[in-house]
Amino acid sequence: VVTSWDVAREAGVSQATVSRVLNGDSKVAAPTRARVLEAVQRLGYRPNSAARSLVTRRTQLVGVVVADISNPFYPQLLGTIDSELVGRGFRTVFSNSEGRPHDLQTQTLLEQRVDGVVFTAVELDSDEPRTLVAQGLPVVLVNRYLDGLDCDVVVGDNEGGGRRAAEHLLELGHRRIAVLLGDPLASTSRDRFLGFRARLAEDGVELDEALVRIADFSCETASVQAAFLFDADPRPTAIFCANDLMAFGVLNAARRAGVAVPEELSVVGFNDIAYAAWESFELTTIRLPLTEMARTAVELLVKRIESPQRAFERIVFPSLLVTRATTGGAAAERKRGPRVRASRHAGRTVA
Amino acid sequence: VVTSWDVAREAGVSQATVSRVLNGDSKVAAPTRARVLEAVQRLGYRPNSAARSLVTRRTQLVGVVVADISNPFYPQLLGTIDSELVGRGFRTVFSNSEGRPHDLQTQTLLEQRVDGVVFTAVELDSDEPRTLVAQGLPVVLVNRYLDGLDCDVVVGDNEGGGRRAAEHLLELGHRRIAVLLGDPLASTSRDRFLGFRARLAEDGVELDEALVRIADFSCETASVQAAFLFDADPRPTAIFCANDLMAFGVLNAARRAGVAVPEELSVVGFNDIAYAAWESFELTTIRLPLTEMARTAVELLVKRIESPQRAFERIVFPSLLVTRATTGGAAAERKRGPRVRASRHAGRTVA
Repeated sequence: VVTSWDVAREAGVSQATVSRVLNGDSKVAAPTRARVLEAVQRLGYRPNSAARSLVTRRTQLVGVVVADISNPFYPQLLGTIDSELVGRGFRTVFSNSEGRPHDLQTQTLLEQRVDGVVFTAVELDSDEPRTLVAQGLPVVLVNRYLDGLDCDVVVGDNEGGGRRAAEHLLELGHRRIAVLLGDPLASTSRDRFLGFRARLAEDGVELDEALVRIADFSCETASVQAAFLFDADPRPTAIFCANDLMAFGVLNAARRAGVAVPEELSVVGFNDIAYAAWESFELTTIRLPLTEMARTAVELLVKRIESPQRAFERIVFPSLLVTRATTGGAAAERKRGPRVRASRHAGRTVA
Repeated sequence: VVTSWDVAREAGVSQATVSRVLNGDSKVAAPTRARVLEAVQRLGYRPNSAARSLVTRRTQLVGVVVADISNPFYPQLLGTIDSELVGRGFRTVFSNSEGRPHDLQTQTLLEQRVDGVVFTAVELDSDEPRTLVAQGLPVVLVNRYLDGLDCDVVVGDNEGGGRRAAEHLLELGHRRIAVLLGDPLASTSRDRFLGFRARLAEDGVELDEALVRIADFSCETASVQAAFLFDADPRPTAIFCANDLMAFGVLNAARRAGVAVPEELSVVGFNDIAYAAWESFELTTIRLPLTEMARTAVELLVKRIESPQRAFERIVFPSLLVTRATTGGAAAERKRGPRVRASRHAGRTVA
């Protein structure tokens, strides 16, 4: 049987170093780590993680909870979080919370004895992070936060982003504006809306309640809600969406209904996920530094795992308006007229 | 300390049943499983997974390897695979293989002692699945396969799909056709191309080598390659892409270059991921039953974990042509003329 002593000899390091590498100690230099792992590979050494974790009480597993993996926002965050975790000797236990009872999520994460959990999607009424924090498990919330829960938090400036979106639309002359909200229990959607509404109010523009609709961060629901909004009289000249995916849904609906963007309708998203820049969308949106946010979340989690007693940090990243092709000047408020309903299979014209 | 006996009493089941539930035995009826988990939750029982896995030699963890989580194909597969695994008492250990050395992947999966691995993306020269299969670890390959490796495999009919794509373009009168290949080490890209080329040859149409380009399954690379193809003389009237993401890249490039789809250029993708049906793309593509494929892969893996000696299965799902708005009749072969180069920020016209 190959032992960790054999690995140490092969790699030319001490057995303690082998042990540190296999326990994911991030203080081991990368070349040393590589040498040890190569020796492990060459000798076919299989450390017994179950036996090891009985001793170290660490599993080197981190739970990463996303709300909806079919929303491209989450794969983008997950990719960065996972890559950062792997770089520090951890592995991601994936958790797609959509449609699953919260308690079951928590239970199975505790069962696996993860060393910590990154929540990219908590809901304001969620007990899950509270339970885990109360049990002393290292937890970091990224993107969304919970009111009154003491733990490490990394968020974007959502209220400021909402304000910036409003300012942009006001400057373009829009007054009749619709809003598509996401999950009403997400802090992000709430704060984006609060900032947006407050900035409009400063210019004396009041939102028509009938034009504020919930589309649950989903492309399909946003398409359905947009179709309703297109029938409003007078029709809104702009729609602010609490995420990019809903904005794509609005663009899809506009294409189906023959509503010209931005001539007849301006659309603003939120997050600036990678697809927003595609020529098929060219979405005006509010950018959050998603990669930086994800990196910082992992950094805080690993610090917390190593020093459970350190003070909690709350880091807020600034947001930024990115103007692309989906916003333009508001024409005089249009009366609802007959619209050209393009066939779904009509050829597309490229501007 | 709360024990599994307390949980059994609370749930009104035997201790053996509690143990079966916590070990993820899929034969326990769902209501019983729920009752046990509720009791676990109520009593705050924390089974020690490390101690348990020393006894059962099972961790209830399954590695799921994807090639590139920023390609929406993979989140779609991952979502189904994870949901199926959770339903059977397993958790997903996520593995994004992009840019990471294969041996390190294998090493860390072995370190965590996963009960099995689902590969959604193997390369033809990859040693990783071979190593794991040789060590007796349950492995299932889904989507891509490896030549000559005995293990459970779930794939789509890629060659047939390639043939169907060729047939569609031939029927529309296309003769000057370009191809964007994916990763040259992926069986999917290879087989799609083989089927496509063979079907063209049956009608006496030979591919111009200069129009067959590698774009690595990436949207950005496909955009760059498409720009080259637009400059070819004569320009191809159709582009077949070995996945949908590359087709989106071609559509993006067409929009930027002012090439009208489908009037001047037909585009065919492969997979029919969810976004392909969006009005912003309306992509003609070859559909694989991705959800069914993912479900079947998990089913085979769990069977293999429970009965390591059973015969290997290879399941091939049929492919299907889905015609949307990106393909149309080929006009007479066009000479390359001056193209309108639209500003990236020009307003979009909706057909």
